[in-house]
Amino acid sequence: MIRAAVIGATGYTGAELVRILHAHPEVELTVLTSRQYAGKRFSDAFPAFYGSVDLPVEAYDAQRVGKNADVVFMGLPHKLPMGLVPELLDMGCKVVDLSADFRFMDVKAYERAYEPHLAPKLLEEAVYGLCEIFKGDIAKARLIGNPGCYPTCTLLPLAPLVKEGLIGANLVVDAKSGISGAGRGLSPGNMYCEVAQGFKAYKVGEHRHRPEIVEVLSRMGLEKPAVTFVPHLLPTIRGMLATTYVQLKRNLSEEEIRELLIDFYADSPFVRVLPKGQFPDISFVRGTNLCDIGVKIDPETETLVLVSVIDNLVKGASGQAVQNMNIMFGLDETQGLQVLPPVV
Amino acid sequence: MIRAAVIGATGYTGAELVRILHAHPEVELTVLTSRQYAGKRFSDAFPAFYGSVDLPVEAYDAQRVGKNADVVFMGLPHKLPMGLVPELLDMGCKVVDLSADFRFMDVKAYERAYEPHLAPKLLEEAVYGLCEIFKGDIAKARLIGNPGCYPTCTLLPLAPLVKEGLIGANLVVDAKSGISGAGRGLSPGNMYCEVAQGFKAYKVGEHRHRPEIVEVLSRMGLEKPAVTFVPHLLPTIRGMLATTYVQLKRNLSEEEIRELLIDFYADSPFVRVLPKGQFPDISFVRGTNLCDIGVKIDPETETLVLVSVIDNLVKGASGQAVQNMNIMFGLDETQGLQVLPPVV
Amino acid sequence: MIRAAVIGATGYTGAELVRILHAHPEVELTVLTSRQYAGKRFSDAFPAFYGSVDLPVEAYDAQRVGKNADVVFMGLPHKLPMGLVPELLDMGCKVVDLSADFRFMDVKAYERAYEPHLAPKLLEEAVYGLCEIFKGDIAKARLIGNPGCYPTCTLLPLAPLVKEGLIGANLVVDAKSGISGAGRGLSPGNMYCEVAQGFKAYKVGEHRHRPEIVEVLSRMGLEKPAVTFVPHLLPTIRGMLATTYVQLKRNLSEEEIRELLIDFYADSPFVRVLPKGQFPDISFVRGTNLCDIGVKIDPETETLVLVSVIDNLVKGASGQAVQNMNIMFGLDETQGLQVLPPVV
Amino acid sequence: MIRAAVIGATGYTGAELVRILHAHPEVELTVLTSRQYAGKRFSDAFPAFYGSVDLPVEAYDAQRVGKNADVVFMGLPHKLPMGLVPELLDMGCKVVDLSADFRFMDVKAYERAYEPHLAPKLLEEAVYGLCEIFKGDIAKARLIGNPGCYPTCTLLPLAPLVKEGLIGANLVVDAKSGISGAGRGLSPGNMYCEVAQGFKAYKVGEHRHRPEIVEVLSRMGLEKPAVTFVPHLLPTIRGMLATTYVQLKRNLSEEEIRELLIDFYADSPFVRVLPKGQFPDISFVRGTNLCDIGVKIDPETETLVLVSVIDNLVKGASGQAVQNMNIMFGLDETQGLQVLPPVV
Repeated sequence: MIRAAVIGATGYTGAELVRILHAHPEVELTVLTSRQYAGKRFSDAFPAFYGSVDLPVEAYDAQRVGKNADVVFMGLPHKLPMGLVPELLDMGCKVVDLSADFRFMDVKAYERAYEPHLAPKLLEEAVYGLCEIFKGDIAKARLIGNPGCYPTCTLLPLAPLVKEGLIGANLVVDAKSGISGAGRGLSPGNMYCEVAQGFKAYKVGEHRHRPEIVEVLSRMGLEKPAVTFVPHLLPTIRGMLATTYVQLKRNLSEEEIRELLIDFYADSPFVRVLPKGQFPDISFVRGTNLCDIGVKIDPETETLVLVSVIDNLVKGASGQAVQNMNIMFGLDETQGLQVLPPVV
Repeated sequence: MIRAAVIGATGYTGAELVRILHAHPEVELTVLTSRQYAGKRFSDAFPAFYGSVDLPVEAYDAQRVGKNADVVFMGLPHKLPMGLVPELLDMGCKVVDLSADFRFMDVKAYERAYEPHLAPKLLEEAVYGLCEIFKGDIAKARLIGNPGCYPTCTLLPLAPLVKEGLIGANLVVDAKSGISGAGRGLSPGNMYCEVAQGFKAYKVGEHRHRPEIVEVLSRMGLEKPAVTFVPHLLPTIRGMLATTYVQLKRNLSEEEIRELLIDFYADSPFVRVLPKGQFPDISFVRGTNLCDIGVKIDPETETLVLVSVIDNLVKGASGQAVQNMNIMFGLDETQGLQVLPPVV
Repeated sequence: MIRAAVIGATGYTGAELVRILHAHPEVELTVLTSRQYAGKRFSDAFPAFYGSVDLPVEAYDAQRVGKNADVVFMGLPHKLPMGLVPELLDMGCKVVDLSADFRFMDVKAYERAYEPHLAPKLLEEAVYGLCEIFKGDIAKARLIGNPGCYPTCTLLPLAPLVKEGLIGANLVVDAKSGISGAGRGLSPGNMYCEVAQGFKAYKVGEHRHRPEIVEVLSRMGLEKPAVTFVPHLLPTIRGMLATTYVQLKRNLSEEEIRELLIDFYADSPFVRVLPKGQFPDISFVRGTNLCDIGVKIDPETETLVLVSVIDNLVKGASGQAVQNMNIMFGLDETQGLQVLPPVV
Repeated sequence: MIRAAVIGATGYTGAELVRILHAHPEVELTVLTSRQYAGKRFSDAFPAFYGSVDLPVEAYDAQRVGKNADVVFMGLPHKLPMGLVPELLDMGCKVVDLSADFRFMDVKAYERAYEPHLAPKLLEEAVYGLCEIFKGDIAKARLIGNPGCYPTCTLLPLAPLVKEGLIGANLVVDAKSGISGAGRGLSPGNMYCEVAQGFKAYKVGEHRHRPEIVEVLSRMGLEKPAVTFVPHLLPTIRGMLATTYVQLKRNLSEEEIRELLIDFYADSPFVRVLPKGQFPDISFVRGTNLCDIGVKIDPETETLVLVSVIDNLVKGASGQAVQNMNIMFGLDETQGLQVLPPVV
């Protein structure tokens, strides 16, 4: 059994990790930490888990975590993990960090978007945990920077095309996320009455997931990516959809692009390229680690339109984190993640 | 492996059966039928299952079902099952019927609420599949009348009190159900714009689940139950909550009642009696086979208030049907049903 | 023109007052106050009103309010108004208080449910502003205790029956309210992800609106009312529905009761008794000052079931407050409140 | 008083017309027609209007309409209006058609997107009813082709920029609409359970509103517009948001563009250009005839991002239809449309 700790276990992504890992056949949850709920039980923070997951929640203690965990999942806001991870690695833990702290190779890109980095050396070692693309590196890694939700949803449909050099550098990514993406903190922006029948764009052209997308596109071979990125807030609990507008450099048919994607993801159980003429719905992947992709070439403008969906809390966060763990520990990557979508 | 057939596999309860049984470690799905989707794949009816559950859907053929299934789940509207079940039993199948056709012992009660019964003899043999209450009979049954959603939600908190002779015959049951209870058929009553920010009572004093509740209360020992039953329609996909108002015949404290319930359900893994002062939320049981119960004695009126919740499609229908199958075939009753609730 | 001030103008009920009064043909809004938004514009607190209602918001200043307002609407939490109202009355203002501070005649009942009263003398003068029932007194009042949302919704269908002495003292009121009833304050209980697909009972047998209901029933002639009151939280922005279970003292038909209600409310433009066999939906009254009522006698138990709906922010708060003002100032009671419900 | 008829009064747009016109101070509703509800009352189709709008609904009779209406609103699906309108014009009625039948100047463009036109001559006379842009022509028109919802939402922010020749021909329009845009017909695509927590793209690159947008952009002076248009379905009752990605031909600042828009719409009471850095939410315009616009130049890619919102049933359909009537009859264009947005 792999002994796992979840740091920051009572936010949405932390709790989703607990839920998945609790049911994972190869994992034993040994330490859960949370500042707010230290001394209580996990089910005090999430009463739905009463009688199901009553594990104790503790204050963070590096020694205790280091001694009792083979893998540590960091579910904390960025800035905190880069202060804690070096010590955990020294104690022999593998780490999957769900914040932005270890997602970038270029420390300057990180610092422009976030703040001064406290462990820049580790950026050389950390592996970007977009499982379908960097699987080989992940298998050998001690430290994973688990991708952002928007980058995951945006990059998966683009990767095969970028690697084949088929697309131009100018991209428009119009992305939409459910409210849980804003986390469990109290703010007017996630109150029921303010958002339930609403919809809006936010951080237009200023979201921190853009530089993450740009860096990875660049690493995959796209020269000077120019990504216009506009996120929106959907009145749903979960789910994320990205509509990406791409200029093709070569004259390819819709069917050729679908086949290219299907081939590329032939060994990737969580990516589904939908049948011709079908487009995904966020409800198709709710609660699952799937990424669904639909493809269309606009008949009038020849723009390629890629529509991709994920569950922001699963493939966009905690599910992909567990997938990364599976790969790091040599397990089948679908272990603990074989959940069917809901009927409704 | 138990070979299972689902008849009427493309309604919500049928599809939920397929979803649960597909993941059940001891079950092989052999036949799915549907009038509307015969000749297509299950994932044509529910595109979310593309690549996950692509089983073919067929027209109903009794011989084919009888030869290929050890257990048959009937997900059809009432009236149809009573015409089909006798033949299936003759061919040696066990049957779990999710309609009302085999829920009643008193054929007249059925006929008052529904219509002339075509197989009244079978009512003597059929077992009412409220698992926690009739487990012994279920284990020996060939034919299960799977309980209605409202009766399941209402009867579980009442059963221990009725069996102890603690409550009066006059009950008020104020029940609320999510929209999926209305099924997948098109009707103005389940259109998004008509119901999304709405709430209403319906079939006030006239719902067919009342006589079902009354008969079972009576069988459990309540004399001449007088149940005022008002269902309402909640703007949620899933979930059901019943608030039941009870007059106690003896002076019992809230704590004594909680303990009575806890004892009664000590060996029932799907019933959770909540801690003192806590009341359930339908979101705590979403997607699970759980029934959560909260208890309060009104300090001013001494009325006992029981609040119970289930997922109408799981414990209220397909989950309980699988639980019945587990019991009938000597499996652990939680097999295939050990799902944690969602974080959000 | 009536000069009006709104104290606490940036909570939901305060803002709803501003919205209604701004469009009222006989009213001029002169002072809006808010601790949180003092110095800003109303549209800073509610950006939807940008360019429509850009009135300045100020800190509370009794002198300034007293000099510039003929009528003052208090949209503050209870306890605060009883400290401020005496001075406003002395300055000649009429006051409509939306808190609980002036709803009770019996100071002890108030103090049991809330806290020590600071202006008990005023309880003798204050009029309970349930417009359809106490219109005569309201017309002569200086100070109105605007009713709670649950009492408004519960009392309107009961009043005609109580006044005729037709019903027994034991009532069950099963009530359901949209999330806006919890106000605009940040709390886990009104976050989108926690409530959007949820439903629960809360303050079971302990809600402070029960003693308010009991006192008014008593004043209307019901001896020793014993009201079991259970509120629930609906996943909707607005709307409230009460299902009330009543024992009749005389043998009356459904039709006789409907006619009694219709006669009683013949001159009340905001009460609609629905046609036989029809029951209200909260979406029928969204945004309006209407109260819709459906009537049913349960054919099995002879229990009378009354189903009533209001918009909790309008007839349950700000709309009724304006209706009270209209009556106090001799205007037609529908002025400023003649809004049709939405199509969807 | 203007005598008005609504043809197809019981669909969502027809009913919204009835609601607005019923409250319009200068209008008398004389004829409502509906195939489905002929012989009943309007409130039978929309029970929320019981006691408020109980007007009779009739079968369509051209003579009766022609004699009793000064203006006729056509709320029918496309194809039907072009068969009926000529006779109504001959009888002296003015007509506002909410279908696509009279929106195009180029009959071939209409026929490519829809079907053979039955009254092509009238396309020369019909005026495209985008009020803020074609007000002069509307004032003199007998026949208005009321714009589609997507074109209204897309064209209003673009018009000032196109007219100044500031933008390139390649546009990406990523649009999102609430469910009511799909109308009141029963279909799986607007059932609560299928859409409530879902979101998807539909008719990707194939929606019929694209040629409408293209033709109008062309008329406003944009050469060979190449519009990639992807609509999506939002889980809300009402509301529409378009995010439009534009290449500027000249180096303009965000502030210059905002000012250009503000100037252009200085006399347009229904268009609000939001303050710098603010972006609209569909809930800000719910139930109103407003169009809100936010402006951003992406700092990395220099793409201009325009975010615009309307209520699809009001400014996107029935509200704009009434605004057109106001202009045609020389009334203030805001008559009957001065509704404040909801607080929540």
